[in-house]
Amino acid sequence: MQAFVYDGQELCYRDDYPEPQPSTGEALIRVLVAGICGTDLEIARGYMGFRGVPGHEFVGVVEQASDPTWVGRRVVGEINAACGECPTCQAGHPTHCPHRTTLGISGRNGAFAEFLTLPIGNLHPVPDGMPDEIAVFTEPLAAALEILEQVHLRPTDRVAVLGAGRLGQLIARVLRLTGCELVVWGRHPAKLERLRALGVDVRSDEPHPRAWADVVVEATGTPDGVTLARKLVRPRGTLVLKSTYHGQVKADFTGLVIDEMTLVGSRCGPFPPALRLLAHNLVPVSDLVEATYPLPQASTAFQHASAPGVLKVLLRMREGI
Amino acid sequence: MQAFVYDGQELCYRDDYPEPQPSTGEALIRVLVAGICGTDLEIARGYMGFRGVPGHEFVGVVEQASDPTWVGRRVVGEINAACGECPTCQAGHPTHCPHRTTLGISGRNGAFAEFLTLPIGNLHPVPDGMPDEIAVFTEPLAAALEILEQVHLRPTDRVAVLGAGRLGQLIARVLRLTGCELVVWGRHPAKLERLRALGVDVRSDEPHPRAWADVVVEATGTPDGVTLARKLVRPRGTLVLKSTYHGQVKADFTGLVIDEMTLVGSRCGPFPPALRLLAHNLVPVSDLVEATYPLPQASTAFQHASAPGVLKVLLRMREGI
Repeated sequence: MQAFVYDGQELCYRDDYPEPQPSTGEALIRVLVAGICGTDLEIARGYMGFRGVPGHEFVGVVEQASDPTWVGRRVVGEINAACGECPTCQAGHPTHCPHRTTLGISGRNGAFAEFLTLPIGNLHPVPDGMPDEIAVFTEPLAAALEILEQVHLRPTDRVAVLGAGRLGQLIARVLRLTGCELVVWGRHPAKLERLRALGVDVRSDEPHPRAWADVVVEATGTPDGVTLARKLVRPRGTLVLKSTYHGQVKADFTGLVIDEMTLVGSRCGPFPPALRLLAHNLVPVSDLVEATYPLPQASTAFQHASAPGVLKVLLRMREGI
Repeated sequence: MQAFVYDGQELCYRDDYPEPQPSTGEALIRVLVAGICGTDLEIARGYMGFRGVPGHEFVGVVEQASDPTWVGRRVVGEINAACGECPTCQAGHPTHCPHRTTLGISGRNGAFAEFLTLPIGNLHPVPDGMPDEIAVFTEPLAAALEILEQVHLRPTDRVAVLGAGRLGQLIARVLRLTGCELVVWGRHPAKLERLRALGVDVRSDEPHPRAWADVVVEATGTPDGVTLARKLVRPRGTLVLKSTYHGQVKADFTGLVIDEMTLVGSRCGPFPPALRLLAHNLVPVSDLVEATYPLPQASTAFQHASAPGVLKVLLRMREGI
């Protein structure tokens, strides 16, 4: 099959990559559209030591499944494939299963290919009428929603989001639905402008008084972002870490104790509410799409996605489908 | 001035009612548009023993204020006028001040008149460009938002709203923004249809399996609603009481203990997030307006608002403004 593969040195398009074979309980899915995420760009720099087909944001059609009612359905899929049997899974936390594989990130080939496999339990049908280019945002939107799953964010809260990139955009678009007093900091005027068009208060200068925010969401993935987040959040406030970081981040833990801060690490989130918000047009996403490339042009797509100020770049597996 | 007045026997339109005089720290406000709420209909039946001008949902223009920067501004106003000095106020809970008066409900004439007074601290400017007929929904929308201020409602929660009337509509429209799995029960097909048009799952039959919901919001104001709410909510779930009830309601308190239920009483809510959601068109309200009457036709407006299946009826104080 066609696939875009990382061999530990570089990403290469291949047309002779072996098709994945679904195990018991898994579905074989023909990928329609996949999205390029910051994590994919990191994988191409060695993140997680991953080898194989990256890509974890996708919409596809089930080609083969032990339960025939799934065959032919258009689906999105949760990316963590858990064992289902360990104490963590039994306690209802499959995304934290220590034996998990993660689509296109760890131990499982991903979505930048004609086919992928996932456990049937990971799949969610896409509502009829929702375009592929919208449905492909389900996974990152779910990650943004995980914040509201973890933190009781009140309508009266002052909330700062740091970073207006791929994930920061979705976080801001979800958090504005709470009615909270929201400010987004970012560097690229073009990215901020898309949020301003939605009525979001955006900033690129050195900010606000210290300790302004009840909740700060760090979505820059940089130590500078963490430092700014710490300045912005009030004593007894909540700092949500929504990025991953290169190496160790130095932090003033004594200050965290003195100010009685709550730090919340936040990763993958729930798909059903993400699909509901997309279906009801409550989170606009189509303005985030910069370009769509066919899979054989994945190298160009990655270069495009890596350029400063660029938001979402999509891959479409076959022309005309 | 013109006013619609309850004298303890009946509601009467008068054109010779004395204008209110603002005390120190209060503003005199010329009312533009006011909304008729279920509480107003109850007041006409003796609720709270109120005598005077009812009405607490309004948008108006400041005519007079000790701080001249307010004069001429279009405003909405929080309805509880607190003393600001008692322990409850000092603890930051002015809406619970035991000495409070409440606009058009208790100890203070309300909005069904040409003029009203409120403390300047209760006022919130209305964004330019927001029509009066939208801004007048700020107060009831704030009451709906109070649920999210009090309860951590998660995107993955199953939530039932009982009642699709004036308040139930706004509650449903706010809760759908969380992405939660939402079902609304109501009796009037026309009311439910307005929610269905927004993609909300609506029901009028005897419902779902017992213990389906993580959170149930009771907005019918009837003992039947409380009984149904109790059936719907799961053990360890949350039951939000969003209505007031005639007299005592019999409830199985032993069952509440056995099932470890949380009951949350919920009343007035925060204005700034309500204004933000209206300004960003995230909560549609214009479809809820059934009719707008001039103040001299307030009796007809009340009859209209009392009819089964009718949602919001508005009063406009002067024609052509």
